[in-house]
Amino acid sequence: MLSNHLQNGIESDNLLWSRVPDSDDASTDGVGLLSSPRDGGGGVDSLDYEVIENYAYREEQAHRGKLYVGYYVAVKWFFSLLIGIGTGLAAVFINLSVENFAGWKFALTFAIIQKSYFAGFIVYLVINLVLVFSSAYIITQFAPAAAGSGIPEIKGYLNGIDIPGTLLFRTLIGKIFGSIGSVGGGLALGKEGPLVHTGACIASLLGQGGSTKYHLNSRWPQLFKSDRDRRDLVTCGCAAGVAAAFRAPVGGVLFALEEVTSWWRSQLMWRVFFTSAIVAVVVRTAMGWCKSGICGHFGGGGFIIWDVSDGQDDYYFKELLPMAVIGVIGGLLGALFNQLTYYMTSWRRNYLHKKGNRVKIYEACIISCVTSAISFGLPLLRKCSPCPETVTDSGIECPRPPGMYGNYVNFYCKTDNEYNDLATIFFNTQDDAIRNLFSAKTMREFSAQSLLTFLAMFYTLAVVTFGTAVPAGQFVPGIMIGSTYGRLVGMFVVRFYKKLNIEEGTPLIQKSLNLSYALLGAASFLGGSMRMTVSLCVIMVEITNNLKLLPLIMLVLLVSKAVGDAFNEGLYEVQARLKGIPLLESRPKYHMRQMIAKEACQSQKVISLPRVIRVADVASILRSNKHNGFPVIDHTRSGETLVIGLVLRSHLLVLLQSKVDFQHSPLPCDPSARPIRHRFSEFAKPVSSKGLCIEDIHLTSDDLEMYIDLAPFLNPSPYVVPEDMSLTKVYNLFRQLGLRHLFVVPRPSRVIGLITRKDLLIEENGESSAVELQQSTSVRGRYSETATRADAARPLLDDLLG
Amino acid sequence: MLSNHLQNGIESDNLLWSRVPDSDDASTDGVGLLSSPRDGGGGVDSLDYEVIENYAYREEQAHRGKLYVGYYVAVKWFFSLLIGIGTGLAAVFINLSVENFAGWKFALTFAIIQKSYFAGFIVYLVINLVLVFSSAYIITQFAPAAAGSGIPEIKGYLNGIDIPGTLLFRTLIGKIFGSIGSVGGGLALGKEGPLVHTGACIASLLGQGGSTKYHLNSRWPQLFKSDRDRRDLVTCGCAAGVAAAFRAPVGGVLFALEEVTSWWRSQLMWRVFFTSAIVAVVVRTAMGWCKSGICGHFGGGGFIIWDVSDGQDDYYFKELLPMAVIGVIGGLLGALFNQLTYYMTSWRRNYLHKKGNRVKIYEACIISCVTSAISFGLPLLRKCSPCPETVTDSGIECPRPPGMYGNYVNFYCKTDNEYNDLATIFFNTQDDAIRNLFSAKTMREFSAQSLLTFLAMFYTLAVVTFGTAVPAGQFVPGIMIGSTYGRLVGMFVVRFYKKLNIEEGTPLIQKSLNLSYALLGAASFLGGSMRMTVSLCVIMVEITNNLKLLPLIMLVLLVSKAVGDAFNEGLYEVQARLKGIPLLESRPKYHMRQMIAKEACQSQKVISLPRVIRVADVASILRSNKHNGFPVIDHTRSGETLVIGLVLRSHLLVLLQSKVDFQHSPLPCDPSARPIRHRFSEFAKPVSSKGLCIEDIHLTSDDLEMYIDLAPFLNPSPYVVPEDMSLTKVYNLFRQLGLRHLFVVPRPSRVIGLITRKDLLIEENGESSAVELQQSTSVRGRYSETATRADAARPLLDDLLG
Repeated sequence: MLSNHLQNGIESDNLLWSRVPDSDDASTDGVGLLSSPRDGGGGVDSLDYEVIENYAYREEQAHRGKLYVGYYVAVKWFFSLLIGIGTGLAAVFINLSVENFAGWKFALTFAIIQKSYFAGFIVYLVINLVLVFSSAYIITQFAPAAAGSGIPEIKGYLNGIDIPGTLLFRTLIGKIFGSIGSVGGGLALGKEGPLVHTGACIASLLGQGGSTKYHLNSRWPQLFKSDRDRRDLVTCGCAAGVAAAFRAPVGGVLFALEEVTSWWRSQLMWRVFFTSAIVAVVVRTAMGWCKSGICGHFGGGGFIIWDVSDGQDDYYFKELLPMAVIGVIGGLLGALFNQLTYYMTSWRRNYLHKKGNRVKIYEACIISCVTSAISFGLPLLRKCSPCPETVTDSGIECPRPPGMYGNYVNFYCKTDNEYNDLATIFFNTQDDAIRNLFSAKTMREFSAQSLLTFLAMFYTLAVVTFGTAVPAGQFVPGIMIGSTYGRLVGMFVVRFYKKLNIEEGTPLIQKSLNLSYALLGAASFLGGSMRMTVSLCVIMVEITNNLKLLPLIMLVLLVSKAVGDAFNEGLYEVQARLKGIPLLESRPKYHMRQMIAKEACQSQKVISLPRVIRVADVASILRSNKHNGFPVIDHTRSGETLVIGLVLRSHLLVLLQSKVDFQHSPLPCDPSARPIRHRFSEFAKPVSSKGLCIEDIHLTSDDLEMYIDLAPFLNPSPYVVPEDMSLTKVYNLFRQLGLRHLFVVPRPSRVIGLITRKDLLIEENGESSAVELQQSTSVRGRYSETATRADAARPLLDDLLG
Repeated sequence: MLSNHLQNGIESDNLLWSRVPDSDDASTDGVGLLSSPRDGGGGVDSLDYEVIENYAYREEQAHRGKLYVGYYVAVKWFFSLLIGIGTGLAAVFINLSVENFAGWKFALTFAIIQKSYFAGFIVYLVINLVLVFSSAYIITQFAPAAAGSGIPEIKGYLNGIDIPGTLLFRTLIGKIFGSIGSVGGGLALGKEGPLVHTGACIASLLGQGGSTKYHLNSRWPQLFKSDRDRRDLVTCGCAAGVAAAFRAPVGGVLFALEEVTSWWRSQLMWRVFFTSAIVAVVVRTAMGWCKSGICGHFGGGGFIIWDVSDGQDDYYFKELLPMAVIGVIGGLLGALFNQLTYYMTSWRRNYLHKKGNRVKIYEACIISCVTSAISFGLPLLRKCSPCPETVTDSGIECPRPPGMYGNYVNFYCKTDNEYNDLATIFFNTQDDAIRNLFSAKTMREFSAQSLLTFLAMFYTLAVVTFGTAVPAGQFVPGIMIGSTYGRLVGMFVVRFYKKLNIEEGTPLIQKSLNLSYALLGAASFLGGSMRMTVSLCVIMVEITNNLKLLPLIMLVLLVSKAVGDAFNEGLYEVQARLKGIPLLESRPKYHMRQMIAKEACQSQKVISLPRVIRVADVASILRSNKHNGFPVIDHTRSGETLVIGLVLRSHLLVLLQSKVDFQHSPLPCDPSARPIRHRFSEFAKPVSSKGLCIEDIHLTSDDLEMYIDLAPFLNPSPYVVPEDMSLTKVYNLFRQLGLRHLFVVPRPSRVIGLITRKDLLIEENGESSAVELQQSTSVRGRYSETATRADAARPLLDDLLG
């Protein structure tokens, strides 16, 4: 494993926007941090580990044998285990806290409203306000990068952009405690997106051996200096986050695969899968412990999982139309949601959040008050309905006993035998509200009027809340919105069928319809907003524990995604764009077809360095521009120039700082005689930090007069493309291999060899391949050809043209 | 879509081992067909569509606007729909036929054995023999490529190797009818692997617009000349096959993703998902029709789906040990299975199957007779057990009524109130046997002795049957074997617990244990043999319709795969290796670290062509070697040579055959004045065919004296690597981009430009990016720099070195 990652020169340079100025204003919300690296002409910094492979690194690895490789693999798996356990425990902790805060809040409020609704409202409002304030305070003062869902940032990291602060220890802490405050405080947001970020942070911190700032780091896990390893760990962390958030291990794997990663390897799938399985076991075990009641208000419902196994398991062709309608509604509302949140976020960024942290806290507090007022006040305006008589059969009490979760909330009703349907969904935790909406046994619980009111208000709240300075996920609000209109459509379908008197067994169909339609509605809204397909489908199936609805969910998702795609991009892409995270999409842009490689880098002045360069020149070059990579050029004995590799700004800075490699002679040193003065890890840069800066380095005038031989420190063979290659091909090369720098060179003058599949099937013994062929003699015979290297280098061209 | 695939020059050259001699001996079983292309030095043929992009193709596309692109996308989706419907119907047809043949066979046999067991045995044996003979006859005489499961071949195709015959119409027909014979004939094999191949064939035939040989092709679907499109369709077909075989749509998508494809794009996921959803709907609709009994013996159990929703949904920590034991057993037995089938297949290939088709048919018939004898004879030796008394409660009759499916088969018993437990699993269709093994309500039905006997015999039969000349899947046999030992372990666990008297509610645990352990056993054996993880897990969950066992299945799979990996490769990899399918693995080999690009192509003599070449020279070059790609070299005005592109053997052959491009002058023609004489599609080669051959082309002596200007027909910018690049980097480039040819060129002398992420984020309007940054003025400012192209081309080097 190690061998493949580090020694063999896989291009795994996927790191770090660096040179970010530490301005207060920019670091407050993780937005706008990316502007400075874009000033520079040289592009993005890179961590090619092969750069120092030849000397320092190989030396360090030389005395480590196969045992070390085994150890390395074992550590990787152990880390996957730790990520699983850590993310699982974090999820349990967040859920436990949220459920207990919310449970205590509602219990207290209900106790007080028995005497005074006004006092109850004040208590409810104040508790929410305190929770939201604490969340906003943590975020603005302590961990600005923990605001929002974090998924766009993680997507960016896995695409190759490390936004400073995203994966720090303080972000992790901020995310965990901020989520507890914002979700416990009853805002229209969820804790699932933040859990994905939490998982990623845990993974990243493990990968770098703890936080350097808080002196929590140990030495041994610093194995993971390769950026590919770190990225793999973060991918595991994402999957673990989803698995923990939804108790959906397969969904987690698919989410990591479909939504967040940019470079996926099937070997990784196996480890991601393992992490998810561990999370499932941890969460399950924790839930088992809590069954005995030791976890306070945290009951079986604490984790998002709605067992709807008594849902519809058959459907009629004529139902496909209302289902398609749900898909269309989901696509429209989802696209609208993306658009509205886009406007909201732009407005916030350009006007509101420029005014500082205080305004952000005020904003969160105001939204909290409004949310409290609406969720308490609207049910007051609604008249209560009498409890249905059939309910007692199904084991559901009406009204529910005070202080318990359940349907049929008695809220501001005149008699004890009534319930308030709006309060059942509005004046409740979101998990319970969803459970009530999905409930199959309460088919006539909600009036269309209440559902419509709730839909409009909650949709507005979700849009307004999105983008405040608190950790916020969009899954649960999406499910709330979707299941509300899904249930509405279900009600209309039932009424329509009843009017026509077509169906036999209508009560059964009614019952399951409500449930299935609520579920399909939820899927359609999430599909219309997030545009995920396979992963969302699996997550929906796993949280409802009902496989029979799978094809229906699939079809609804197809419709809603197609409708949504007609209007705008997915939520995460829109947000990433807004946050200035320049994601490289997997496909080249259309107009690239007409461009060639040279045109893409026209505006950019290439600064090449000679192999042995004066320190003063290095310093002045580094000061005069912001390029992050420099070609290094040497002369052959015959006087021709030759590109010998790529050296990175960050490595040059390390060299300038350490000074041990300075030499007096302007002649190249002998690499074999040269002592190794650098440890491999010196060139590595911690995740989410800003690295060295030329201004930080002090050089004496003696230093400036010395020379450095760059040969040991360069990447000897960066990928190259001919100058007139189609830009789409260049894009594919760049994107598929996850590169940072690509040399555009003149067309070659001759072809030394042609590599085909067969040439790459060589086995260790040097034979062509272990493939046993019946007539394989001729294959082997190929190697006995008298084609020497000289022949190969001098093509037949000479004969033909000569 | 079109634009991205064809016009823009994405390297999508993933086609065709060609130049395969049409020898009878080689074409009989699809093995050894790959030897000849490996004789050649030039490697594998390619279909770079960009090759003719500049002239013929662009001309053809020029008058097609955006409407055409929309049409193209619509056709793609329509094809996904057709693939879904086609594969679903094929699956329904196969299942229907198998169930009816098998049902009729068992009904007849049971009717006869009421009078005479000997006569019954003869009838049983003869029916099986006839079915197996018909299958073997179809395969050997008509569709040799339809033997086996076909998954290694499909995997090879998606990896870039088109084994002739794999995706033909006759293979499809052979696969469908062959499966019916072999599965209906009671052999120890399944119909699931063949269904994957069936799906792939349907997809490929749709993609090329029907079979050319059988005059079924139409013109319009010939849109899909790009190999990438074809590969996408085949991927959809694979997923559809799995979805249809197991009624597991998500499992199908994951199978395609994890097991078969080599290049996966997330856009494709969406379409694969759609196809799977369609399959699910088609199969469900067909099952709905059959519910009324119009499908004969085909009942609800015809499709593989075992609803085990009343399985164990909780587990104890002390159960993890027996579960790990199941995993270990699965890993060991699976690895042993791979090894034994490897020896069997090698032996068959080297000795048995060399003797011709007759021997293959004999072999299949003998195996059929042995299987019949064992499955009929062994239960005869087993004493019957009295029916348990508790059974009547659970709705299961004991013994089952004659002619029905179910548990408790009364076979060779003295009284009517007895059943034969070995006959229940052995003398039954495999689907019913699995259902009986998974059955939760029959916890004491099987004695350990019967299960052990069955395990040993069936394992042996499965090994021996593997590799005969009939379509054969390994899923169902694997599930049989696995669930048998799983149930055995479950029995021991129950006994152990009972002895210790630890557990309360033992009967419930016993009941669910048997079931869960059978399921876990099945998963472990498949994991140990096929080494799939996520997809297998999802398939197991989908076929048993029980999500609660998911974490347990995951953990068992982890153990069994790890154990199996310690011994050998997965079943499909072993078989692909045996069949001479040289799969390019996703990771470079360890020893490549020490090699450079030049070393990989040392043995190979590059033959370069000049831009304008004499026809006689082309012909003699094509005759004198077997290279499939040739660099084309031209002179600049200053006399330097310049590599201007790559021309393919297949395209040269098309040019030689059509002769319209021959010219008298040895001077290059003006490309703009040149009429377009070729249609783009002339250069495309149908899937699974052998293409043109130089020997087929007749050239007159006048022709030979003429010239061809190759410029319009070449790929103007193949990917290049410097000669001393690490071979692992070369491998990654080759593998990730799915290349066919890669030029090894000298190190460049200068760097014209450096491409970074930023350069590739250009938007259509030419601006840097739509990313809105707070301090973005400096970014835009970059474009106002006075860096001209000349500056960029002349690096700072001159200043520094001069």
